[in-house]
Amino acid sequence: MNVGILTIGNELTGGRIQDTNSALIARTAQEQGWQVSAMLSVGDDWDAIRDALEFLLARADALVVTGGLGPTADDITTAAVAKAFGLALRTDEAVLTHIRTLFEQRRLTWTENNAKQAVFPEGAEVIDNPSGTAAGFAVRQGGKVVAVIPGVPAEARRMLPEGVTPLFRKAFPEAALHVETATFKLFGITESAVDTAVADVDFAGLGVGVGFYPRFPENHLVLTARTALAQEAKEKIRAAGELVEARLAKHIFARDDETIEKIIAEGLTKQGLTLAVAESCTGGLITDRLTDVPGSSAFLERGVVTYSNAAKIALLGVPEAVIREHGAVSAETARLMAEGVRQMAGTDLGLAVTGIAGPSGGTEAKPVGTVHIALADGQSTVERRHSLRWDRRRNKVMASQAALLMLQRHLAGEKDL
Amino acid sequence: MNVGILTIGNELTGGRIQDTNSALIARTAQEQGWQVSAMLSVGDDWDAIRDALEFLLARADALVVTGGLGPTADDITTAAVAKAFGLALRTDEAVLTHIRTLFEQRRLTWTENNAKQAVFPEGAEVIDNPSGTAAGFAVRQGGKVVAVIPGVPAEARRMLPEGVTPLFRKAFPEAALHVETATFKLFGITESAVDTAVADVDFAGLGVGVGFYPRFPENHLVLTARTALAQEAKEKIRAAGELVEARLAKHIFARDDETIEKIIAEGLTKQGLTLAVAESCTGGLITDRLTDVPGSSAFLERGVVTYSNAAKIALLGVPEAVIREHGAVSAETARLMAEGVRQMAGTDLGLAVTGIAGPSGGTEAKPVGTVHIALADGQSTVERRHSLRWDRRRNKVMASQAALLMLQRHLAGEKDL
Repeated sequence: MNVGILTIGNELTGGRIQDTNSALIARTAQEQGWQVSAMLSVGDDWDAIRDALEFLLARADALVVTGGLGPTADDITTAAVAKAFGLALRTDEAVLTHIRTLFEQRRLTWTENNAKQAVFPEGAEVIDNPSGTAAGFAVRQGGKVVAVIPGVPAEARRMLPEGVTPLFRKAFPEAALHVETATFKLFGITESAVDTAVADVDFAGLGVGVGFYPRFPENHLVLTARTALAQEAKEKIRAAGELVEARLAKHIFARDDETIEKIIAEGLTKQGLTLAVAESCTGGLITDRLTDVPGSSAFLERGVVTYSNAAKIALLGVPEAVIREHGAVSAETARLMAEGVRQMAGTDLGLAVTGIAGPSGGTEAKPVGTVHIALADGQSTVERRHSLRWDRRRNKVMASQAALLMLQRHLAGEKDL
Repeated sequence: MNVGILTIGNELTGGRIQDTNSALIARTAQEQGWQVSAMLSVGDDWDAIRDALEFLLARADALVVTGGLGPTADDITTAAVAKAFGLALRTDEAVLTHIRTLFEQRRLTWTENNAKQAVFPEGAEVIDNPSGTAAGFAVRQGGKVVAVIPGVPAEARRMLPEGVTPLFRKAFPEAALHVETATFKLFGITESAVDTAVADVDFAGLGVGVGFYPRFPENHLVLTARTALAQEAKEKIRAAGELVEARLAKHIFARDDETIEKIIAEGLTKQGLTLAVAESCTGGLITDRLTDVPGSSAFLERGVVTYSNAAKIALLGVPEAVIREHGAVSAETARLMAEGVRQMAGTDLGLAVTGIAGPSGGTEAKPVGTVHIALADGQSTVERRHSLRWDRRRNKVMASQAALLMLQRHLAGEKDL
C-alpha cells in the first residue's frame, strides 16, 4: 500500500517553521509496512491544495493531510478538500457541542469562528482529537482514503496512531505487512567504503532493502524487510544481517538503538568499574557525551579539561620536563595524562586525549588534527595517534568518538585497541 | 519569482531522518523575496524523481533539489535529473581531481565509486562544495533553472547562499531585489511571548517581514526588507530593529552572526581575563562550547567536571561539611565551586554549575531541573538558582546557556546577573 503525505500552511512554505509532521507520518507508515510515495507541502491556497491532492492521489492509495484546520480565515483545508472531491459541507452537531463544552471547561470566550471546526465534508468520518478542539476527518473516493488531521504536532502525534492508522488498516486489510529493520552503526569507514564492502551481497535477492546514512562521525547501514508473516521478515533480516556482519564486523560498534555512550555506561556499570577522563583538545566533549546517559554519576568520578600546561601538571601530575621535552601534544603526555587522572581520581580507568583541533597551532611535525588518545587501567596503558583532517568542531567530534571507541573495545575485552 | 523545492532520499520517505533542508531553502527564498510554490520529498526512485520534477517545474521558475548525490548505488539524483531533461552524463576532470585530493588529504582509501561524484549532466554548471566531496550543479531548460546540491545539511547550508542564490539572482535579474535582514537572538522568553511583545508593531506597514525561529534553547526573531535600492532596505530594517530592541532588549544576547561563545571569547580576550570552569550536571558542555571558538586556549585555563563529591573536595576545595549540610546541589556548594576553581586555577574568573539534570535524582525540596550557577571574580561571587523543566539533554543545554549568559553579562559590566 502506498501513502501520500500533504502538509499545509504558509508557515511551512515561508520557512518560518520546521515541518515535523511529515517525518512522523512517514515513520508511522514505515512501521506499518506501507510505502510513502511522496511528501508534499503547500501554502494555504485553494489551487495549490487541489493540485497537491491530485498529484498525491495519482500515486498513493491513502493520504494523510495535516494543517489548516484552525478557526481563522486562512484555514481552508476542510473546504479545499471538500471542493476537490465535489462534496458539500455539513456541521456535525456532536462535534460542535464538544467544542463548546471545551470552551466552557477552559473558561475561554466563545467566538463564532470556532463553529468552523465542527464543519466537515458530507459523508466524512470524524477522527477524534483527544488533545485539541480541531477534530480530524476522513473521506473515501474511488477506493482511496484521505485522512485530514490538525498540524499541531502534539495533536497529530496522538491522532495518527489512535485515529488514522486503525482507519487505514480497516480500509486496506491486505496491506498490513510486518516490517523488520536492523541498523548497523559503523565508524572509521567512509560511506562509499561501506557500499563497496557489501557490493557483492544481493540484498534485493534476499528480499531486503538496504540504505546508507552518514551521521557524522558515524555511518549507518539499515536493512528493511516487509512480509506478511513476522517470522519471515525476521528471518530475511537475520540472513542479510549475517552477510553484513561478515564484511563489516570490525567497523560495527553499535546496532539498532544502541549508542556508544550507552554501551560504555552499561559496560562500566556491569563490570563495576569507575572512570576518570582528562581532555585537552576535545574540551569536555567526551564527558558531555558520557553524562548524557542517565545514571552516569555511578561510574564517572571526574573529568578534567586541562587546556593549560599548568593544569596538566597540577591536575594530572604530568612532569613539566615531559611537556618541555615531548610537547603537550605527544604520546608521552597522553600516557601520563591517562595514568595521572586515573591515579588522582582513584578510579579503575583513566582516559585521556590531547591534540591540535585547529585551525591554527599546527607544526611540520605535528600538523593540525594530530591527536593522541591513551587509556590506563593500572596494569598497562595503551596509546594511539590519530591524524584528523576536518574543521575544528569535527576534529573534536572525531577525537571524542575515537576515544570512546578505545574505551568500548577495552570493556569488550578486545586486545587490539 | 516562484521556487520549487525537492528533497530526495529513502531516509526521508522512510521517516528515518527529519528533512531540515526544505525549511532552510524556503527561508532562504523568503529572504530573497521569492515565493515557494511547493516543497516535495520523494525516495531514491527514477519515476518518482521524474514526476516530482515535472510537477514542480509546472509551478515554479527555479528548483532547488537536495539529496542523492552520494557515491553509493542508491544515489541516483544526478542520473535521474539528466534523464528527465534528456541530457547525457559527463565526468568533470577538475572535480574528479579535487575529490581525489580531498581523499589524500584526509587519508581516506579511494574506491572507484567515488568517481561518480564527478559526473554531471552535459552543459551543467558545477556548484562548488566547500565542505564536502559532492559538488552540486545547475541545468537550465526553457528559461527555468534547476539547482542540485547535496542533502547533508552542513553542506547545503553553505552551498545555498554561496552557490545557489547568486546563480538564481543572475538567471532572474528582474527578481533580484536588495534584501536586508537583521537577526535578534533571544533567551529566556518563549516564542509566543516574543510574538506578543512585538504584537503592537506594524511590521507590514514598515515594509518589513518578520519571522520567529525557535532554536533551542534560543528564540530568533528575523526582520527582512526587500527593496530596489539597498539604502532603502537598510533604513527599513534600522527603523523596525529599533522597535524590536525597545521591546525585547533584556532578552537579546546576540545579533546576526554573533554567538554567545564568540562574544564571551572576545570579551575575555579584549579584557585580558582568564577563566576556569567547574561543572557538575552540565558534564563538560560549557567548556565544550567555549572550546569550539578557535584560540580559546588563550583564556580557558582549565575546566573540571566534578561529578563526585570527592572531586568537588579535591579539585575545588569544597569543604565536605558544606556538601553534607547543604548538599552537592545547593547555592553554598555552587559558590564554593566557583571560588574554588578560580583559586586553584589562579584565574581571574571562576564559573560553576551544579544541579539535577534528571530523569531521576530529584527530591521534594530539589526537584529534577534544579540548577545553581555561580560566578566568582575575586571581589564577589554571584549565584542564581534555576528551575528547568526539560529532559536530561535539554536541561544540560539550558543550564550551559544560562551559565554562559551570566558570564557574558558580567563581561559586559552588567550589575544584574
